[in-house]
Amino acid sequence: MLKAIRYLQSKTKTPMLNIFRKHIEKFTQVSDDEFEEIKKFFDTKEVARKENLLEEGHVCKHHYFVVNGLLRKFFINEKGIEQTTEFAIETWWLTDNFAYEHKIPSEFYIQAVEKSTILYISKANQEQLLKAFPIMERYFRFIYQRAYAAAERRIKYLFSLSKEEFYLQAIRNHPEFVQRVPQYLIASYLGLTPEYLSEIRKRHIS
Amino acid sequence: MLKAIRYLQSKTKTPMLNIFRKHIEKFTQVSDDEFEEIKKFFDTKEVARKENLLEEGHVCKHHYFVVNGLLRKFFINEKGIEQTTEFAIETWWLTDNFAYEHKIPSEFYIQAVEKSTILYISKANQEQLLKAFPIMERYFRFIYQRAYAAAERRIKYLFSLSKEEFYLQAIRNHPEFVQRVPQYLIASYLGLTPEYLSEIRKRHIS
Repeated sequence: MLKAIRYLQSKTKTPMLNIFRKHIEKFTQVSDDEFEEIKKFFDTKEVARKENLLEEGHVCKHHYFVVNGLLRKFFINEKGIEQTTEFAIETWWLTDNFAYEHKIPSEFYIQAVEKSTILYISKANQEQLLKAFPIMERYFRFIYQRAYAAAERRIKYLFSLSKEEFYLQAIRNHPEFVQRVPQYLIASYLGLTPEYLSEIRKRHIS
Repeated sequence: MLKAIRYLQSKTKTPMLNIFRKHIEKFTQVSDDEFEEIKKFFDTKEVARKENLLEEGHVCKHHYFVVNGLLRKFFINEKGIEQTTEFAIETWWLTDNFAYEHKIPSEFYIQAVEKSTILYISKANQEQLLKAFPIMERYFRFIYQRAYAAAERRIKYLFSLSKEEFYLQAIRNHPEFVQRVPQYLIASYLGLTPEYLSEIRKRHIS
């Protein structure tokens, strides 16, 4: 019986691990034997819609890789409103990087927007993985490099685009993303009320 | 004569390379022989105050490491005002990462705030360096990881702190930095007029 459960578990885990392996191989090569070892550093989790993976005030222990679904990161501002700062779809990584590196309590929440399947790794495991498989340094170097470049562009837009312009640019550049995320979360990302976003939509989308 | 010049050049280059080596060794170990090879991928440059290393519309070809001095990155907004988005002091890296990775024209300027000494590397050389010395993947992984974590915090502050609060926090956390940067550039970083920054200073610093 136990053997059957393990077999079923490994059957379920295989497709999600394939997605992860394909993502690694966008940046570097790993052999079958290496990947067999690499995957042992990760755990998997199914997350329900609106379930929190991280809550404000809790030590940020994990780094999350979205296999399927959609996560968001937000904080609660001084008016008690949820301000979303990041989303993560399939093959994106998400954590509170500062709190994760320093193993300190986070100021953020990480929550599933849709029912999601994720891989995750602890800080200690990530360090051991990088020591045991230096090839993964290259993978994570690319992950952080691209995430950093995107964050720099975001900062420029926060200074140079109005919220309306930023929304219209998002529709142009990432239409499938804007369609997938509920409107009230788009508003939360832009720092708008849902009512004001609805006005913008009426003005531009007919 | 030529030999004497080469000797003098290598004498001048050595202290700055030591700073770079020490910085690498904060994250990973390199042998003397490895470092002898690694340093060949870099060039050095003295930059005058207010000299531009990168200008808007030009392809972003280099990644800069500050050995001595202070650089800033800015763009010119639709009102014609310079909006500073980043500073880099000793041992910090700076470039327009998105334009650098994709070898495309930049929307930014990179300029020396003080007379500065820098090491720099081209995109092609950085790629070759990482292939030849995978140990440098670990170094750059840390560089990008920390820069990304800092950018994520910056984004949170842009949403949650007023410009006044952000300035006061900077004085508390980085007093030596705030003292070193001219006031009009602090204003340019905060997105304030120098006059308004001067009012804030009068209110809080007596």
